[in-house]
Amino acid sequence: MAALIRKTASAALVALLLGLLGTAVALAAGDPNGADTLKADATKAVNFSWTLIAAFLVFFMQAGFALVEAGFARTKNTVNILTKNFMDFCIGGLAFFAFGFGLMFGGSKLAEGLDIGNPLVGLSGFFLTGDAYDVGTNMLWLFQMVFAATAATIVSGAMAERTKITSYLAYSFLVSAIVYPIYGHWVWGGGWLATLPFGAGAKDFAGSGVVHAVGGLVALTGAMAVGPRMGKFSADGKPRTIPGHNMAYVVLGTFILFFGWFGFNPGSTLAATDLRISVIATNTFLAGIAGAVVALYATLARTGKADVGMACNGALAGLVGITAPCAYVAPWASVVIGALAAFVLMGSLWLVENVLKVDDPVGAVSVHGACGLFGLLAVGIFADGTYGDVSGLIAGNVGQLLAQLVNMAVVTVWALGTGYVLFAGLKATMGLRASRQEEIAGLDITEHGVQAYPADEPVAAEPAASGLPATGSTSTAGVALA
Amino acid sequence: MAALIRKTASAALVALLLGLLGTAVALAAGDPNGADTLKADATKAVNFSWTLIAAFLVFFMQAGFALVEAGFARTKNTVNILTKNFMDFCIGGLAFFAFGFGLMFGGSKLAEGLDIGNPLVGLSGFFLTGDAYDVGTNMLWLFQMVFAATAATIVSGAMAERTKITSYLAYSFLVSAIVYPIYGHWVWGGGWLATLPFGAGAKDFAGSGVVHAVGGLVALTGAMAVGPRMGKFSADGKPRTIPGHNMAYVVLGTFILFFGWFGFNPGSTLAATDLRISVIATNTFLAGIAGAVVALYATLARTGKADVGMACNGALAGLVGITAPCAYVAPWASVVIGALAAFVLMGSLWLVENVLKVDDPVGAVSVHGACGLFGLLAVGIFADGTYGDVSGLIAGNVGQLLAQLVNMAVVTVWALGTGYVLFAGLKATMGLRASRQEEIAGLDITEHGVQAYPADEPVAAEPAASGLPATGSTSTAGVALA
Amino acid sequence: MAALIRKTASAALVALLLGLLGTAVALAAGDPNGADTLKADATKAVNFSWTLIAAFLVFFMQAGFALVEAGFARTKNTVNILTKNFMDFCIGGLAFFAFGFGLMFGGSKLAEGLDIGNPLVGLSGFFLTGDAYDVGTNMLWLFQMVFAATAATIVSGAMAERTKITSYLAYSFLVSAIVYPIYGHWVWGGGWLATLPFGAGAKDFAGSGVVHAVGGLVALTGAMAVGPRMGKFSADGKPRTIPGHNMAYVVLGTFILFFGWFGFNPGSTLAATDLRISVIATNTFLAGIAGAVVALYATLARTGKADVGMACNGALAGLVGITAPCAYVAPWASVVIGALAAFVLMGSLWLVENVLKVDDPVGAVSVHGACGLFGLLAVGIFADGTYGDVSGLIAGNVGQLLAQLVNMAVVTVWALGTGYVLFAGLKATMGLRASRQEEIAGLDITEHGVQAYPADEPVAAEPAASGLPATGSTSTAGVALA
Repeated sequence: MAALIRKTASAALVALLLGLLGTAVALAAGDPNGADTLKADATKAVNFSWTLIAAFLVFFMQAGFALVEAGFARTKNTVNILTKNFMDFCIGGLAFFAFGFGLMFGGSKLAEGLDIGNPLVGLSGFFLTGDAYDVGTNMLWLFQMVFAATAATIVSGAMAERTKITSYLAYSFLVSAIVYPIYGHWVWGGGWLATLPFGAGAKDFAGSGVVHAVGGLVALTGAMAVGPRMGKFSADGKPRTIPGHNMAYVVLGTFILFFGWFGFNPGSTLAATDLRISVIATNTFLAGIAGAVVALYATLARTGKADVGMACNGALAGLVGITAPCAYVAPWASVVIGALAAFVLMGSLWLVENVLKVDDPVGAVSVHGACGLFGLLAVGIFADGTYGDVSGLIAGNVGQLLAQLVNMAVVTVWALGTGYVLFAGLKATMGLRASRQEEIAGLDITEHGVQAYPADEPVAAEPAASGLPATGSTSTAGVALA
Repeated sequence: MAALIRKTASAALVALLLGLLGTAVALAAGDPNGADTLKADATKAVNFSWTLIAAFLVFFMQAGFALVEAGFARTKNTVNILTKNFMDFCIGGLAFFAFGFGLMFGGSKLAEGLDIGNPLVGLSGFFLTGDAYDVGTNMLWLFQMVFAATAATIVSGAMAERTKITSYLAYSFLVSAIVYPIYGHWVWGGGWLATLPFGAGAKDFAGSGVVHAVGGLVALTGAMAVGPRMGKFSADGKPRTIPGHNMAYVVLGTFILFFGWFGFNPGSTLAATDLRISVIATNTFLAGIAGAVVALYATLARTGKADVGMACNGALAGLVGITAPCAYVAPWASVVIGALAAFVLMGSLWLVENVLKVDDPVGAVSVHGACGLFGLLAVGIFADGTYGDVSGLIAGNVGQLLAQLVNMAVVTVWALGTGYVLFAGLKATMGLRASRQEEIAGLDITEHGVQAYPADEPVAAEPAASGLPATGSTSTAGVALA
Repeated sequence: MAALIRKTASAALVALLLGLLGTAVALAAGDPNGADTLKADATKAVNFSWTLIAAFLVFFMQAGFALVEAGFARTKNTVNILTKNFMDFCIGGLAFFAFGFGLMFGGSKLAEGLDIGNPLVGLSGFFLTGDAYDVGTNMLWLFQMVFAATAATIVSGAMAERTKITSYLAYSFLVSAIVYPIYGHWVWGGGWLATLPFGAGAKDFAGSGVVHAVGGLVALTGAMAVGPRMGKFSADGKPRTIPGHNMAYVVLGTFILFFGWFGFNPGSTLAATDLRISVIATNTFLAGIAGAVVALYATLARTGKADVGMACNGALAGLVGITAPCAYVAPWASVVIGALAAFVLMGSLWLVENVLKVDDPVGAVSVHGACGLFGLLAVGIFADGTYGDVSGLIAGNVGQLLAQLVNMAVVTVWALGTGYVLFAGLKATMGLRASRQEEIAGLDITEHGVQAYPADEPVAAEPAASGLPATGSTSTAGVALA
């Protein structure tokens, strides 16, 4: 098995290196320096600044996902879930650099070096080389890269506590290289969904569909493929609660996600000269808090307990729900959308566990999948026509709703279909699930050779194996000299 | 009791929804798109970008408060304090959307839709509807919203470990809807304090008074109303130390607060074209570090121990102290202000515990209340006349000091008075304090049905109650299908 | 000893206060208001905004360092390492304000008030007074301040778990006042290295050398001077692994550092009108992820375990490596640089432990020292000539490589030399190492009088000593009334 991993990883690395060599010899024909770009349009300075800072905030959401998922996991699987969250954006980043960005934005002509592509798939911009070695293309790349990373990382939560790390990393590569970009091309990269002949075409301002529904629905296929954790369902199929290990991580992670969402949604204008950014930021805030308030009080009314985990997921539900419509609706509608998203969340949580009998330890399928689809729908209902000529039901138009329904169907079929193929393939080759013994012992010791919280030993019991460094890592694994 | 909560919450929700319906039918007469605003003033792009990013940083301070307070609380009350910190800005946010913003900025004419109001109270801008559906108004709203949330969340620390969650949430609504905005109107919203006939009128650049003194003094009334924790004072009235449970949270939380303060103070220009932002940022940094250094070495000199909790509170004291004067003073003065604030902090901590006999588990009254008042005073002393025509004692003027003293008296009377009424009212109706049994067991189990750090159970002991989802939350509480 | 500390601290404070008095009477001749500066150049608004926000992100890296180091430390030394990380930037900040900034940027003429200096040392700008009370100078100061803080804080990790807190704080003052600024002057402040007659002179865009190599090499001298932790090396000199106590802190800290690096590198343009910022941000991201992927898979291939601690250090290695060349190279080269940096890291880790026999609990010497030197080298190899007229080997030029080699030699000699003198001096006067008993018991109790994670006590056992406040701090140390 270790040999297989080594071979797979080696092959991927060789492919990457060959690609790099190819790009090294290509001549840059874009504007890598930026002087000409600025001369042509002085507002590029503030727009680059805005978009890049937004991208940084979105990047930071990775820490939020890591904390929320670690908090909802048990102590014995903490290092495992942290590793998945740390590595999926790293591996996905190389995949998006090599393949994903070109497949998604080739043909969009949104920046230099993105000329070649068709309504189904993009075919230029790979490795940011040639004309794509340009300041505008690099700006677009970074912003889109952190979005791709968000979609990829959603899945780890739904598959937590029983998935092999190596298979998860392979998934990260494939979803960032292929699954995410191709659907993304259809909506944002010059593809066919954006030009549907209904309303203004399918509209998904910041990615309720492209990022969250894709992530959440692929997560559903992943959780189904790997199966529930031992003990999640009783013999007669009733779900049991398996408590996580740290609610402070969950709350801090949610705060970080909320913070990062202010990059996610307002940053999606890619321009500060589009002053709608203030309305988008306000809408984002309002939907998030409305989701939290509804989720908390609905639970409190029913059980008498103030469930902060549900409040956190409620906030995230509201944020996911407002992601598509954030630019097209008024603040009052954002409160309504956030509140409704909390109900969608609660309904979906019930459905996933009790009807589908799927084990999703953090609620990722419901938060991102169900509320992502709801966000697409909300555009068709609440868009008020003040921005981008997008008008929904409340403005008296049915066309936009039609476009949104088509998009909802397409993303559902695409994400479930490719997710099924992807995880079936991984299951048949690398294997998807940790062994029964590993699951009982916890993945931290078995796959990572470490504990999340080792107790103090004043003096190490025995010397490290000869010739290996034994650095500050809590790992017991040595590292070879390069 | 549960019935009362449900009724109160339902009534508040109905009021909100009716308000929303009203706003839905109102026509927007502002500039919700932003194109006209930009055309009239191209610098709006960089100023919106600056102000929004600053608002995002201030938002993130909520995570800092949550961590500092959780760290200073005991394990058994950790979920409780996290829940309060997570929900107060959510509930306060809806209150500020519906009522607070209009009461605070109506009549200020700082943006569209804020025309109606008088020196005592604002009367327009509610629900961001009508003319207030405008990009400029939304920008102002978000920035002011996160400030209101900061003021509200200060109180949770002072009342930690013995306050009922439902009463605390009701407090959050009321302080954000009424207490904070009305005094804020007097200073920032076109009210009477800003036009006092001394110096340049009362000056509070980023809210030592509006945010911190209000929060800290309301916290004092809250801590007095709820009474000290069991065991805080011995039979003869001597205070005892009740250690918190996680110093890493305290330090991380302080770092986050310090980071967010760079949005709080420099962002309060609402404009990057006001280049004074660089001096403000430098002043903020210097006051924070000076406060930390003085607090640490003063404690070290006295006790021989390097008390990082005191250093953290010293940094926060310096930051609170510089918040009002940050734009009006020179860097050297910021070092002095930060250093003095650390002494104010230490004196106030002694006073609160030993003279007032009040139990403030995190020192919120001293950090925000006492140092907030000191910040107002510092404007009258250290303002050097280089910015905004504000000159204090060191520039030879006494008038500004007079204005600041009046403001200090007003905020003290307002915050203590309204705080007293607020908590007396809650005490008489919903009740303020958890029961003796709940306090001994810890609020996490009794009010939230969860522990902060559950130990691993490989398999849940028994199935969840029929029909309820049992999601990744560590909660034992189920959630009803909507 | 306590008396010595008090005297030293008092003397430093008096010196600071005298300096402040001096600055208070000096007249400002710069532009403290900023109105004239903006009139002369309207792009200052976006450039100030960009640079300040970047500085805020770099500031936040302090939290990242604190968490990574705390996670790699044992429970019993957690408060100690947190205190060091919190206080070093505070004390270093005052040192840089008083002395460092003037020594580094005097004579650079990069802003007002920085006219006096020579190629060896700067001699103006102290205390930000006189002409330096200017918006441009303050902007530069804050950005450079947070860089100096980064260099200073690197050392704490290498000396963790056995260094006296008071000596460490004295080190922080001296390195920020003298060691860092003087070398920094040579490269960034108008000094002699920038004008070497090879290539474009020594180039270090964002500080692989100025910040990281200096910090990492001084850390090496510190770790050597204080000696290894008890039990780190067996009797026959073999290194042993001493596990840290919290891998979640390590991963969260690394995420925060990565996030902050987006301020560190792109912010170093000091201008958003330099659109190369997008390429720099992309390069930063790519090098970081490539380092993580290589470090993880190299370890996985060798040991079969996915070591997340090594992945985190791999990411940091890539980030350090790209810091000097980030502006001068293409994205493909950043992937290569990040990947190579991971190998440099692993080689250096082995070398430090097995050849030098130095105990560096977090790998700071390798991550920052070795990879910092490698970053300087990478400029000479991979610079492609598209930016700033810097061309390395791949563009057919040898001159730049020569300049970089000279710089590498200089920084090595300077950092090792001054570091040696600094720690030898501290060892001879204040003493550097905690006692054997303190090290066994842990520094938290002995130096700080607190534990990181106290267990709940429902009621404190006995009253605090008379007259002392007993605030929410977990400290057992009281605080004197000022």
